[in-house]
Amino acid sequence: MPAGGVTRTPDQGRSALLTDLYQLTMLKAYWEHGMNETAVFELFVRRLPPNRNFLLAAGLAHALDYLEGLRFEPDELEWLGGQPGFPPAFVDWLADLRFTGDVDAMPEGTVFFPEEPLLRVTAPLPEAQLVETRLISLLNYASLIASKAIRFTLAAPAARLVDFGLRRAHGSEAGLLAARAAHIAGFDGTATVLAGQRWGIPIFGTMAHSFIQAHDSEADAFIRFARAHPDNAVLLIDTYDTEAGASKAVEIASRLRAEGIEIQAVRLDSGDLDAHARRVREILDDGGCRDVRIFVSSSLDEHDVARLAHAPIDGFGVGAALTVSADDPKLDSVYKLQEYAGQPRRKRSEGKATWPGRKQVFRSCERGRLVRDVLGLEDEALSGEAMLVPVARAGARLRADPPLAEIRDRVRASLATLPAELRALEPARPPFPVEPSPGLRELAREVDRRSSGDGIDEGFAAPGTSG
Amino acid sequence: MPAGGVTRTPDQGRSALLTDLYQLTMLKAYWEHGMNETAVFELFVRRLPPNRNFLLAAGLAHALDYLEGLRFEPDELEWLGGQPGFPPAFVDWLADLRFTGDVDAMPEGTVFFPEEPLLRVTAPLPEAQLVETRLISLLNYASLIASKAIRFTLAAPAARLVDFGLRRAHGSEAGLLAARAAHIAGFDGTATVLAGQRWGIPIFGTMAHSFIQAHDSEADAFIRFARAHPDNAVLLIDTYDTEAGASKAVEIASRLRAEGIEIQAVRLDSGDLDAHARRVREILDDGGCRDVRIFVSSSLDEHDVARLAHAPIDGFGVGAALTVSADDPKLDSVYKLQEYAGQPRRKRSEGKATWPGRKQVFRSCERGRLVRDVLGLEDEALSGEAMLVPVARAGARLRADPPLAEIRDRVRASLATLPAELRALEPARPPFPVEPSPGLRELAREVDRRSSGDGIDEGFAAPGTSG
Repeated sequence: MPAGGVTRTPDQGRSALLTDLYQLTMLKAYWEHGMNETAVFELFVRRLPPNRNFLLAAGLAHALDYLEGLRFEPDELEWLGGQPGFPPAFVDWLADLRFTGDVDAMPEGTVFFPEEPLLRVTAPLPEAQLVETRLISLLNYASLIASKAIRFTLAAPAARLVDFGLRRAHGSEAGLLAARAAHIAGFDGTATVLAGQRWGIPIFGTMAHSFIQAHDSEADAFIRFARAHPDNAVLLIDTYDTEAGASKAVEIASRLRAEGIEIQAVRLDSGDLDAHARRVREILDDGGCRDVRIFVSSSLDEHDVARLAHAPIDGFGVGAALTVSADDPKLDSVYKLQEYAGQPRRKRSEGKATWPGRKQVFRSCERGRLVRDVLGLEDEALSGEAMLVPVARAGARLRADPPLAEIRDRVRASLATLPAELRALEPARPPFPVEPSPGLRELAREVDRRSSGDGIDEGFAAPGTSG
Repeated sequence: MPAGGVTRTPDQGRSALLTDLYQLTMLKAYWEHGMNETAVFELFVRRLPPNRNFLLAAGLAHALDYLEGLRFEPDELEWLGGQPGFPPAFVDWLADLRFTGDVDAMPEGTVFFPEEPLLRVTAPLPEAQLVETRLISLLNYASLIASKAIRFTLAAPAARLVDFGLRRAHGSEAGLLAARAAHIAGFDGTATVLAGQRWGIPIFGTMAHSFIQAHDSEADAFIRFARAHPDNAVLLIDTYDTEAGASKAVEIASRLRAEGIEIQAVRLDSGDLDAHARRVREILDDGGCRDVRIFVSSSLDEHDVARLAHAPIDGFGVGAALTVSADDPKLDSVYKLQEYAGQPRRKRSEGKATWPGRKQVFRSCERGRLVRDVLGLEDEALSGEAMLVPVARAGARLRADPPLAEIRDRVRASLATLPAELRALEPARPPFPVEPSPGLRELAREVDRRSSGDGIDEGFAAPGTSG
């Protein structure tokens, strides 16, 4: 193997250089001018994707992990020192930089809506600024996938759902985080082995078509697999002909039963799954295999799953539709400065204006149903449950991450509060309203009045309405 | 910081457990039955995404890196041994497993089409099988992004193009690999610092809106930034009002010039970019700032860039549209067994049939224009250039990875051969044809005839036409 030119697979998730260059150029200017006062940034989603009625928070555990571990390594600092614009004194200062701030956030598994802060960082300006890119990256993707995954659980609440999407996820971190986000949202498990090792998520898997093809006879392949995995005997029956495969499964079932092995399920991966499942169910039932379940996969999205809800199907394997959130593959997540040195701030760019100040989401339920979210100021006295809670102080977590089971329970409880139109797969009209509080509106006007001294016109820019 | 329950940000890209469970359950059965003969798998894309006319190969460097480094670590083996179905003798065998096979592939930067193998693995069955998931993951995402990125270079061949998409990419590996794939396809650089450190890709970046907001006056923010970065003085002028921002840039330009600092560019990030760019250009020109360039960003896709081609815009920052390939976020990449123990194999599932045997792509150009691709057998005597070349033998690379500059040159050369309809952003009708060779068709019939002994009917299933 040649020594030079080898491109190492990146171990990128932990690097402080996994950021946008502008974070570092801004830090240089802040450092030069001693701009180290407390900044407040909030992370939120600007708009609901067209096919979503609500969003589900995920990724906080990894975001906190990132903040706690943030530091520049010696080799990174050396490299930075060789780049234009970064003098040695600045690089030395970066070497000591740690995240020492506070974080308030919605717990993982919380339902949220656009404009609502998912996370608030309160820290000296350079620290709060530097972490922008990676915080967005982690919360954006995990929440994107949790928000997609929950649609499958809404489509088929009684079925087993398994994430099959690692191979078509956008890289390794995506595949892994998707397995976790989907499990949070109600998936039973994943095919991704590493997600099982890392987080104890149940893992599922049996055979690919190549296993069948590598044998000269399909029946031999079935028997070999069942003997190798007597407790996980799920047979893939569509490599050549689905119904013929089902008949073979029936034929070998009694032979295997004599050995003490029960076929647990068959998997279908092609063709008209509804029709095949019905015929396969008949073949299995007629052959005395009533306990053999039917599991299907094949580029399924949540609408396919909903359509197949009345077929005799016990579980679904879901791939790219889940792990790339294929219908809406992006969330418009942003991280915006809302206060600096005690002064509320806002951006007024066309169509991208933000609400200033430290905010809180006040959520009201009536008779167990979500009826209203009010976006108010943190210190405003408003009714409703405060959805952002303290999660880190002085750079450290306040408590260990909750177990995934606890997060899954929170999701189930939240789902039960959603009105029917939000639980539907089709877009709710109108979308769920998030009302800005009187205090927030007044603060935005105040900030605009103050800014007008800088030559900015006085018209009030309401987020989400302008541009 | 509590010791228990902390969720470490994953360092996942190198783990042998970053795979689907079925790879391991199949391996167990292969191991049990000594199925260790040579297998040939090919990786290809089944269908062109709706909005693409061709695809661009990328990710091979990381795929080879993965194969060379493949091994199970002691903690992974210990964990596996605790899972059902994996006895100690099998786990011991896994401990010694390495990739010892051969790889033939299209070099990075090669144009390719559906059904054409991007990569072929020839190795003992368990090795060739185990690597499926990660090979697809790496080649699928990098090729997806390279194939998207090149559309931006086709839309604006003369403009500077910079990847701004790390934050909305699906996780850290995606962000990093996207920076590299986009650069291969013609982007000038990226905002992602780590891509600069890892691969020497040019990095770009200046300031966010928060930088402006953290100052009481926009002009002060501009001046401070320009002084901190005299060689990288690009000012973001749309935080409050774009044209007012441009006027302020003009006002401070002479002050800065007196200090020996030239403003290099302004950046616009909101509103009607065409109209703003024209007015800003006038303001700059009238103010004697003719050399100040205009750079724009704001959720741009390749169609936006094409529409803005006639505005006075010198460069584009591109975000999520690039790094999640937003219009077509997935490629239908598969990795299929085509031969085992010297016997050609094929899958005949409805709508998912594959061509059997070891294949080669024979590409013909006439007068410098691509006219024909023929999908033939490796040993078939056909005219045209053979697009798959040997890249690894006995588990090791045959040569160091080519420098990115060489890959970029290959892309430029390939682009020049594409007919105009393939270079257009709109779908080519009909799509570029890939013709199966007579030898390949005959082999598929032969395999089907042989399979019919197993009770499979004799109808010939042509890939891409059935189901």
